[in-house]
Amino acid sequence: MLTDTALREAFSQFPQGMVLVAAEIDGVRHGLVASTFTVGVSLDPPLVSFAVQHSSSTWPILREHGHLGVTVLGRSQVPVTRQLASTDRARRFDGIDVTVDPAGALIVQDAPAWMTVRVHDQVRAGDHDLVLLEVLAIDSLPEATAVVFHRSQFKELTYEI
Amino acid sequence: MLTDTALREAFSQFPQGMVLVAAEIDGVRHGLVASTFTVGVSLDPPLVSFAVQHSSSTWPILREHGHLGVTVLGRSQVPVTRQLASTDRARRFDGIDVTVDPAGALIVQDAPAWMTVRVHDQVRAGDHDLVLLEVLAIDSLPEATAVVFHRSQFKELTYEI
Repeated sequence: MLTDTALREAFSQFPQGMVLVAAEIDGVRHGLVASTFTVGVSLDPPLVSFAVQHSSSTWPILREHGHLGVTVLGRSQVPVTRQLASTDRARRFDGIDVTVDPAGALIVQDAPAWMTVRVHDQVRAGDHDLVLLEVLAIDSLPEATAVVFHRSQFKELTYEI
Repeated sequence: MLTDTALREAFSQFPQGMVLVAAEIDGVRHGLVASTFTVGVSLDPPLVSFAVQHSSSTWPILREHGHLGVTVLGRSQVPVTRQLASTDRARRFDGIDVTVDPAGALIVQDAPAWMTVRVHDQVRAGDHDLVLLEVLAIDSLPEATAVVFHRSQFKELTYEI
């Protein structure tokens, strides 16, 4: 039987990278952490995607703003990932070094990769919405250490196998 | 400037798991390997997603069949992943141990996780289609070693950090 517990257990066997989707709007920083991010959904135009719960109170604010930063979270961000995802929204960015572009897209520094995006499309997908983001600019820091979330833990990667 | 090369280089910094989406239809095995798979898109109903190029010749066959197997590829599947993704479609499954359910969903054995799914929805996303699959059954083999594709290499995961 497909119980929620069985589903979560099996889903957790699939390693997924984590991102922060964020913006500074009227001087206030808003961000959400997603474990459902995917790159390379399309190359022309360049699209990435993530899923967000219908109940998210942060996403409608970010969506309305439209111009967003996406930070691929790496080893340097692991200590602050739970803070960035915490329910205490006012303190999510406390003590975290970020860069904000003139249009408000917010990036966390020293991450493996980051991009500025605009909302391209949003489609209903069960109890979430699947959001398509168009990549406007992208850069990476190959010496930053990538991590994935797997079986409820952050893990680094080994060398080529 | 956002060139294709810069885009691919930056996208490659984001670690992604790989899956095989496959079915046996009228005695013929069809499958495609995707690096854009995402679990947990929705829990109720349970949805997963992946992106497929408009030009795929395999996906229309699988989509028409509708009842499919998804195998999360792990360490044991790395030696055959390039074969499963090769352009020589007739030989993709040569020598690979698989399980096929009565409705044709095809699973590769000894993988970290696998599921049977049906096509839930498909939306256009630039030069790809984003496919939503509803999970009908799912199981996992926690002792199987997970891998991700990162910077054009397969990599295993380290322990918790």
